[in-house]
Amino acid sequence: MSNETVRIQFSEMQDKLETILCKYRFPAGKAQICARIITESTCDGVLSHGLARFPRLINQTENGEIDPQAEPELVNSQAASEQWDGRHGIGIYNAVKVTDSITARARENGIAIAGLRNTSHWLRAGTYGWRAVEQGCAFICWTNTIPIMPAWNSGKSILGNNPLVIAVPSQDGNHIVLDMAMAQYSYGKLDLYRRSGSKLPYPGGYNKHGKLTIDPSEILETGMPLPVGYWKGSAMAFVLDMLAAVLSDGKATMDVDSVENDISQVFIAIPLTKPGQMHIAELLKKAVTDFASAPDKNGNFPRYPGQNIPEIRKENIEKGIPVPARLWNNIAKY
Amino acid sequence: MSNETVRIQFSEMQDKLETILCKYRFPAGKAQICARIITESTCDGVLSHGLARFPRLINQTENGEIDPQAEPELVNSQAASEQWDGRHGIGIYNAVKVTDSITARARENGIAIAGLRNTSHWLRAGTYGWRAVEQGCAFICWTNTIPIMPAWNSGKSILGNNPLVIAVPSQDGNHIVLDMAMAQYSYGKLDLYRRSGSKLPYPGGYNKHGKLTIDPSEILETGMPLPVGYWKGSAMAFVLDMLAAVLSDGKATMDVDSVENDISQVFIAIPLTKPGQMHIAELLKKAVTDFASAPDKNGNFPRYPGQNIPEIRKENIEKGIPVPARLWNNIAKY
Repeated sequence: MSNETVRIQFSEMQDKLETILCKYRFPAGKAQICARIITESTCDGVLSHGLARFPRLINQTENGEIDPQAEPELVNSQAASEQWDGRHGIGIYNAVKVTDSITARARENGIAIAGLRNTSHWLRAGTYGWRAVEQGCAFICWTNTIPIMPAWNSGKSILGNNPLVIAVPSQDGNHIVLDMAMAQYSYGKLDLYRRSGSKLPYPGGYNKHGKLTIDPSEILETGMPLPVGYWKGSAMAFVLDMLAAVLSDGKATMDVDSVENDISQVFIAIPLTKPGQMHIAELLKKAVTDFASAPDKNGNFPRYPGQNIPEIRKENIEKGIPVPARLWNNIAKY
Repeated sequence: MSNETVRIQFSEMQDKLETILCKYRFPAGKAQICARIITESTCDGVLSHGLARFPRLINQTENGEIDPQAEPELVNSQAASEQWDGRHGIGIYNAVKVTDSITARARENGIAIAGLRNTSHWLRAGTYGWRAVEQGCAFICWTNTIPIMPAWNSGKSILGNNPLVIAVPSQDGNHIVLDMAMAQYSYGKLDLYRRSGSKLPYPGGYNKHGKLTIDPSEILETGMPLPVGYWKGSAMAFVLDMLAAVLSDGKATMDVDSVENDISQVFIAIPLTKPGQMHIAELLKKAVTDFASAPDKNGNFPRYPGQNIPEIRKENIEKGIPVPARLWNNIAKY
């Protein structure tokens, strides 16, 4: 019963979310954009950073942590570069505005970059990569977060997991979109393993004795997930944080408020319009053939980041988007 | 005897390398730049990507794999964007030329990007990050390589380890420079562990049965080092490769020649000149304090990427650069 799943049509979900957002004082256009993106993420199979976060978004809006009326402000620009202040508005909308601004600016300059400060959670990082590739731009973006991951050799969580997106558009729509946080497992994934009573396939964090463990409960207890690649992911998370703070003139993880409405983000768009930059579809076809020729001993073979998304999306648009019945019933009450 | 180390003065090493490069038909200016950079890398403690690779460089030049006379060519440019052809010249010089071009172009535009194709090994990736931060630019660069690492779920090495640099300049000279390949351990590091008869602290690759192992010999035997963070580093290596190939109109790892003189690289420079972008020194001081307050249970505490380099550099400039006597004697014979 509690694990029952229902399938909701794309337009029904989007309309419902839009109506709720309007009720909570989001202007109509902004409500429409946010509802669409949350629905798209859920439709792409990323429930944890889609619909599952909607109740918290509304809660943060009620608490005044997110200002539904705030418009992001372009505070500085020079040729191919912008600085934005998100003014504690909703992270999705702020990031969409900046993504669209930067892709347009990139078309004139061959590349463009923006730093965005004082923004709130952008939900699914991949959203902005997918949005940019649809506009023919390669895209790199990342965010900092509150401290939720230890640094290498630290005894407590002092780094963000700082999700990073690198996206490459393909003319045939088979875009490459990498969307990865700097922790080996997200808290959502750890919780999923815990609920199912499973151990992790690989060590995913520290227990209270400071030892690496594959027990998700022990990691959720300490709040010390393992950085990707031990010292390497720790170093990368740190430098992404510093660069986000500096480029946006915003806050670094150590200074971000616990309500996480003043985080810093970076967006870089690169239009693929130069000679020879259009051969990605061909390259990708060759890579997939290469992958298929190199299965492992269990007959598995590699896939490229984002490869499975179009299939999932198609199925969920046809059959309805699967969501936990309990979550959908909760949302219906707003 | 065979493990004896000698200390060579910076200027002696640089002069010696320059003389040899000139003998092998490198033009004087180019020989000077390459000799200096190889000496700097060795001085910074990165012997494996400094002096230790010099014999191979000469060998490749003798074999015609590297053309000592080739000048990189700017084949395309638009506002903040460039495309270069390295024409199978020496990777260090090509990458230096592109780094300098892009940092100048970035100052006019707020950011600039270049793709470089048909280039050879740039030795130490961090070189170009350090060079750019000295010029007040944040810097992101990466390279593809020949296939030397398995993809996640692949039974053979089909990806490059694709070193990535992210660098942030600080006004007080304490720059942050991340220099990381996408394999958990480099082949050089694996070999170092093997020679010392030690196991790896964490699994570093696959043995011939397709199982993860901490035995460096087993990994060197299969040529299957583990990507950083399992599936995550695999995905990241792949997308970096695709983006390098597309942005440079060059080759992806699957098409790179085994002599590795036609690899593809990307360089992005971002001058920190906007309001608030100059507070990195202050941020970094705070971060280091934060680090010091969070030691692990063994009393270790985190350091930021690049933090130890200025100390190493200072010591080696004072006392001479430590190198294996056997290597130095070999080089003396050229």
